[in-house]
Amino acid sequence: MCRWVAYAGPDIFLEDLLFEQQHSLISQSLRARHASQVTNGDGFGIAWYGQRNRPGLFRDILPAWNDENLRSLAAQVQSRLFFAHVRASTGTSVSRSNCHPFQFQNWVFMHNGKIGHWQDCRREVESLISPEFYRYRAGTSDSEALFMAALSEGLQDDPVGAMSRAIGKVLQIMAAHGDSEPFRMSAALTDGTVIWAFRFSSDQASPSLYYGNPDTHAKDRAADGQVNTIASEPSDDDESNWHSVPEGHGLRWSGGRVSVFPFVPA
Amino acid sequence: MCRWVAYAGPDIFLEDLLFEQQHSLISQSLRARHASQVTNGDGFGIAWYGQRNRPGLFRDILPAWNDENLRSLAAQVQSRLFFAHVRASTGTSVSRSNCHPFQFQNWVFMHNGKIGHWQDCRREVESLISPEFYRYRAGTSDSEALFMAALSEGLQDDPVGAMSRAIGKVLQIMAAHGDSEPFRMSAALTDGTVIWAFRFSSDQASPSLYYGNPDTHAKDRAADGQVNTIASEPSDDDESNWHSVPEGHGLRWSGGRVSVFPFVPA
Amino acid sequence: MCRWVAYAGPDIFLEDLLFEQQHSLISQSLRARHASQVTNGDGFGIAWYGQRNRPGLFRDILPAWNDENLRSLAAQVQSRLFFAHVRASTGTSVSRSNCHPFQFQNWVFMHNGKIGHWQDCRREVESLISPEFYRYRAGTSDSEALFMAALSEGLQDDPVGAMSRAIGKVLQIMAAHGDSEPFRMSAALTDGTVIWAFRFSSDQASPSLYYGNPDTHAKDRAADGQVNTIASEPSDDDESNWHSVPEGHGLRWSGGRVSVFPFVPA
Amino acid sequence: MCRWVAYAGPDIFLEDLLFEQQHSLISQSLRARHASQVTNGDGFGIAWYGQRNRPGLFRDILPAWNDENLRSLAAQVQSRLFFAHVRASTGTSVSRSNCHPFQFQNWVFMHNGKIGHWQDCRREVESLISPEFYRYRAGTSDSEALFMAALSEGLQDDPVGAMSRAIGKVLQIMAAHGDSEPFRMSAALTDGTVIWAFRFSSDQASPSLYYGNPDTHAKDRAADGQVNTIASEPSDDDESNWHSVPEGHGLRWSGGRVSVFPFVPA
Repeated sequence: MCRWVAYAGPDIFLEDLLFEQQHSLISQSLRARHASQVTNGDGFGIAWYGQRNRPGLFRDILPAWNDENLRSLAAQVQSRLFFAHVRASTGTSVSRSNCHPFQFQNWVFMHNGKIGHWQDCRREVESLISPEFYRYRAGTSDSEALFMAALSEGLQDDPVGAMSRAIGKVLQIMAAHGDSEPFRMSAALTDGTVIWAFRFSSDQASPSLYYGNPDTHAKDRAADGQVNTIASEPSDDDESNWHSVPEGHGLRWSGGRVSVFPFVPA
Repeated sequence: MCRWVAYAGPDIFLEDLLFEQQHSLISQSLRARHASQVTNGDGFGIAWYGQRNRPGLFRDILPAWNDENLRSLAAQVQSRLFFAHVRASTGTSVSRSNCHPFQFQNWVFMHNGKIGHWQDCRREVESLISPEFYRYRAGTSDSEALFMAALSEGLQDDPVGAMSRAIGKVLQIMAAHGDSEPFRMSAALTDGTVIWAFRFSSDQASPSLYYGNPDTHAKDRAADGQVNTIASEPSDDDESNWHSVPEGHGLRWSGGRVSVFPFVPA
Repeated sequence: MCRWVAYAGPDIFLEDLLFEQQHSLISQSLRARHASQVTNGDGFGIAWYGQRNRPGLFRDILPAWNDENLRSLAAQVQSRLFFAHVRASTGTSVSRSNCHPFQFQNWVFMHNGKIGHWQDCRREVESLISPEFYRYRAGTSDSEALFMAALSEGLQDDPVGAMSRAIGKVLQIMAAHGDSEPFRMSAALTDGTVIWAFRFSSDQASPSLYYGNPDTHAKDRAADGQVNTIASEPSDDDESNWHSVPEGHGLRWSGGRVSVFPFVPA
Repeated sequence: MCRWVAYAGPDIFLEDLLFEQQHSLISQSLRARHASQVTNGDGFGIAWYGQRNRPGLFRDILPAWNDENLRSLAAQVQSRLFFAHVRASTGTSVSRSNCHPFQFQNWVFMHNGKIGHWQDCRREVESLISPEFYRYRAGTSDSEALFMAALSEGLQDDPVGAMSRAIGKVLQIMAAHGDSEPFRMSAALTDGTVIWAFRFSSDQASPSLYYGNPDTHAKDRAADGQVNTIASEPSDDDESNWHSVPEGHGLRWSGGRVSVFPFVPA
């Protein structure tokens, strides 16, 4: 399991959300509060959109809590849309290629959860990835495979449908390998403009998913009711800042507005 | 703060003590039970005596819990005397040079604790290190400085006296910089034959220190009453396996026998 | 391209061959003499057989020339059979999982060369790997895939035949993707008792492959004419110490004796 | 020895200078042309000025030539003034803290060369560092010590004088330890607005130092005769783009104009 946060709104320094919150993502790397695994020390990553079409990507295998490069970058880089993730490996090796977020062109994906029986299912799940995308598979994780399976289902044209179809096919593969391990996910996806997030599990025990408006420097600059943060858990204790996304639902963020919709695998 | 374990006895594979205990050191890297900091993920190190006069030294900056090299080495290497340490940085940077154990010729030292006001005291503490040893200072940590200060006080001829004198001088330096931060240590030292361990603090709140005989493959091969393990906390729940060293005391292990003695700075 | 060396003979410290030769493997990491790429700084690995059935494996992503852990291990560990490798990536990412040697149970493989058009061929080559072995694929390199394809062809029972069949199938896959990039290999394989090495390319331009008896501490202890080293290039300038394996040939080492045989893909 | 480049001029993406030149710094990490050591693979670093008073700092211990984070950052980050450095260790360990550039508040320093007899001189050179700065010494390298000695000599008020005085004192210390190893440097220093560079050695064999105007996207946007690049060696083969700084001289860059002046230790 892992922890993640996505931001979209007025330009802020990454440190505003990643370090300066009461329960910031970086503090969650050392001690998460809503996760099955307290410590998320098996690497981290950030993806941010700047002046280019494709986002920047910075991932490393050290724990986030003591990484001086991450600290400095977060103090320098401003962005209107960024993803950040701290990892607790569920079995695959600790390498930069297995760190989230995963990127393809202007698309970025990050994930908390797992595909059950991954080592048994892996090859069949990878067979869902079309050759066009398979050449860009750089790691061995279930999360990257899920992203690429969704890309192969047409994610770039139909993000929600493609994710739904990819998960549906993964569930079929899992079913052939027994049912002792569930599929679970809270995940976020973006093309650099719109963000989609998903909360789903095969056993009605999905990891948590929130959206809200924590007390960053963006808050005062945003119009009333605008949402700028989506996260695996709240980054502060002010409950009025956060809304939980229900089990089996997705979320679409665009221009500060969020819509929540039922999300089930195809 | 950190966690550590020292072994001396019949040859065992390192994994026997480092991985296969109920509360092994490696599991303590992710979740220690007796430490002020639960997570000890800022690097690790092992030093082991084999067929050469000087020990082997293997240190890395990744968390111990997922390091495949450590796992493989611990499965291959047998030793009659080894030290192992998992680190939680108290401020100095995460680099191999700051990972314990520290080695000088056939001597090895590892430490849990800290010199209070380290950044204020650092230069003066380093001035305790004689030129002969200073050229081998590879890192910037308080622990390595303490070891080298003790070497400069004649550690190789008089380990307990030199450690006592070095700590005494460090306490004097600390006193000149205020008293808001204590000196605390549980530490172990060896020349490859005898092990000394120390439990001391300036505020009567020393980190824990134990010796005993956990259920390893060495246990059956050792004579009755022989001790083979010294550790910052027990590696199993069998209380009959462990003895606590009192506050302000040292321990000398030789040939399976332990003697405990009062230890105060000179 | 990469550099590698395999040793089998009387127990020696690894440093004897890896560091103390005139043109040792570690010096080749900084400046190889017979390689298309001079610098082999994209990680390294060693596998050594000790007291257990399975070998130890130590791999890291830093250049070998300055790695203190490798230096210390090589000074401590004695072995009767070990493999060592320094890597120059041909495109896949620098991670421990992509470092050679690769291990499966008691088997170890390392490789210099490449599968041409790897990113185009990768998926089809991976499809040669049977499910039994695919679950152990930890990286994304062509070299590991080739090893696993050969395992799937029955490497454990018929090493030369399986390697021949695996390469034959790889060449068929490559042919379907054009012929602008060749298949090239010099590689070594062992089960812990016997060593096989292979020199082959699809364009009659195979990387070099040598066997011999360099001036290590093993030399005096070995019977006349016994060979203890197989390498991608000689580790000293004494030509009487080395024999070149011809293009399109394999080598079998057992008990100090070497036989050379024609090697072609099935 | 090491390689470095400093840029100041119109905002450019870092990749423009670091990757896209004919002989870019990153290609120099694998194969430098004007350096005593061809390979500069013992880590790298960049410091860049953006929207904050203090620069960003990104340093890592892997070779620059294959680092995906550096590649991505260089593609995203634009800056009007940045330093970049690839390291070949002259003896001190490979750690982030020993990677250049070194930063203090808004000041940044990087260095090619060495203090002769460093391990003998180290302690005395460190004694040149005033307590105010010593607390920020994070590594063990001669280069960082020289920077901090110069800070202690008043670098922030009088950069050239302080550097001259610091080097003078270092030379005195070196003289007491024999003369078999020279002092050599080509170095660059900035406060974020002005750049100073220095070329000096104790044996009239200083490392090379150039300034010029290579073919980047900045060239067309700069006024005639404006200089935007200072480097340890040219990044392209167009000799009209580059001027060599003579032995024993310094350089001051401000607003696109360069002045060269004699530089000798005090």
